[in-house]
Amino acid sequence: MNTSDNTLSSTLLQRAVDEFAKLPGIGRKTALRLVLHLLKLDTEAVDNFAQSLTVLRHDVHYCKVCHNISDDDVCSICSNPMRDATQVCVVENFQDVMAIEATTQYHGLYHVLGGVISPMDGITPSDLEIESLVERVRRGDVAEVILALSSTMEGDTTNFYIYRRLQDFADVKLTTLARGISINDELQYTDEVTLGRSIVNRIPFSL
Amino acid sequence: MNTSDNTLSSTLLQRAVDEFAKLPGIGRKTALRLVLHLLKLDTEAVDNFAQSLTVLRHDVHYCKVCHNISDDDVCSICSNPMRDATQVCVVENFQDVMAIEATTQYHGLYHVLGGVISPMDGITPSDLEIESLVERVRRGDVAEVILALSSTMEGDTTNFYIYRRLQDFADVKLTTLARGISINDELQYTDEVTLGRSIVNRIPFSL
Repeated sequence: MNTSDNTLSSTLLQRAVDEFAKLPGIGRKTALRLVLHLLKLDTEAVDNFAQSLTVLRHDVHYCKVCHNISDDDVCSICSNPMRDATQVCVVENFQDVMAIEATTQYHGLYHVLGGVISPMDGITPSDLEIESLVERVRRGDVAEVILALSSTMEGDTTNFYIYRRLQDFADVKLTTLARGISINDELQYTDEVTLGRSIVNRIPFSL
Repeated sequence: MNTSDNTLSSTLLQRAVDEFAKLPGIGRKTALRLVLHLLKLDTEAVDNFAQSLTVLRHDVHYCKVCHNISDDDVCSICSNPMRDATQVCVVENFQDVMAIEATTQYHGLYHVLGGVISPMDGITPSDLEIESLVERVRRGDVAEVILALSSTMEGDTTNFYIYRRLQDFADVKLTTLARGISINDELQYTDEVTLGRSIVNRIPFSL
């Protein structure tokens, strides 16, 4: 089925399909399917959908402490008195915060860098929220900085850069996520690099 | 990654993700990915997207002649003087019009039923635009009605119902799409029913 301009009988429809097709991973066929679905809904439901997007884009904030997506100037994690403000977990993006929050195992705060250093993509330290991290540590409340970046070359580069920037703060502990074999993973299917590191960095057995 | 309420730090974000996840075939992960993409766009681009949906839902018309989706009361096909108004092709839905238009082989008009008769789904003739088709034929301009419904039990039932309703108009030719082996299809991979019908309904060979 061809969905080019000359087969769509309505310019309004054409425009909506064009807009949907701009979204990542949405082709023209899917866009048409979604638009035809919206056409079948109540006017109110479509208005709600459209409004939720406009409101989101206009009213969403980034937490001025940790740069996480937030409804207010300071996000619900940073403003929660139950969280341990001495721990700061450094992550690449908002999804990583969500992934760690979903584990319910971490009770400290976050610092969202907004990416990792990548010369190939033209992303330098000044494009990321590294200066604000150093500033947070300089203020003196932070006892531990947990580096939770991806285990890639870019992640490692960023880890090293942050390590250098925080070197002067001798009383701040710098930790990183444990790397090793995933829980429930079978040894024979684990990649060599992970398995190799797991043997080198073996830990005392405990029940 | 869990995207339930308690891990999304922003209620605005939550609402936009909820709205996207209502669309068919869009799960919560995809919804989040799309919403985060929109957050990165210009305010104007998001406003355009939202507006295209609102405008579509509020302003789109259904052609009062053929019931196709249209910008005006009468669609661009029905109002085109170059099209042959004596031929009416009966299709299930708007996508079928697009598919036939894309072939550029048909120059008549359409009649969009809005579905097929399906007692299982509670769809009766009165739910479809069959009465308006009979009315169109009764007005006397139509010389040929082409039944282009799906080759399913429901499609066949609808074909039969329309055939009965149009029986009285002796001067109106009733035709249907040619069924047979697809162009470029190999015989050995063609399903038995199609192949069987193709042999029974064989046509004179021509170059």
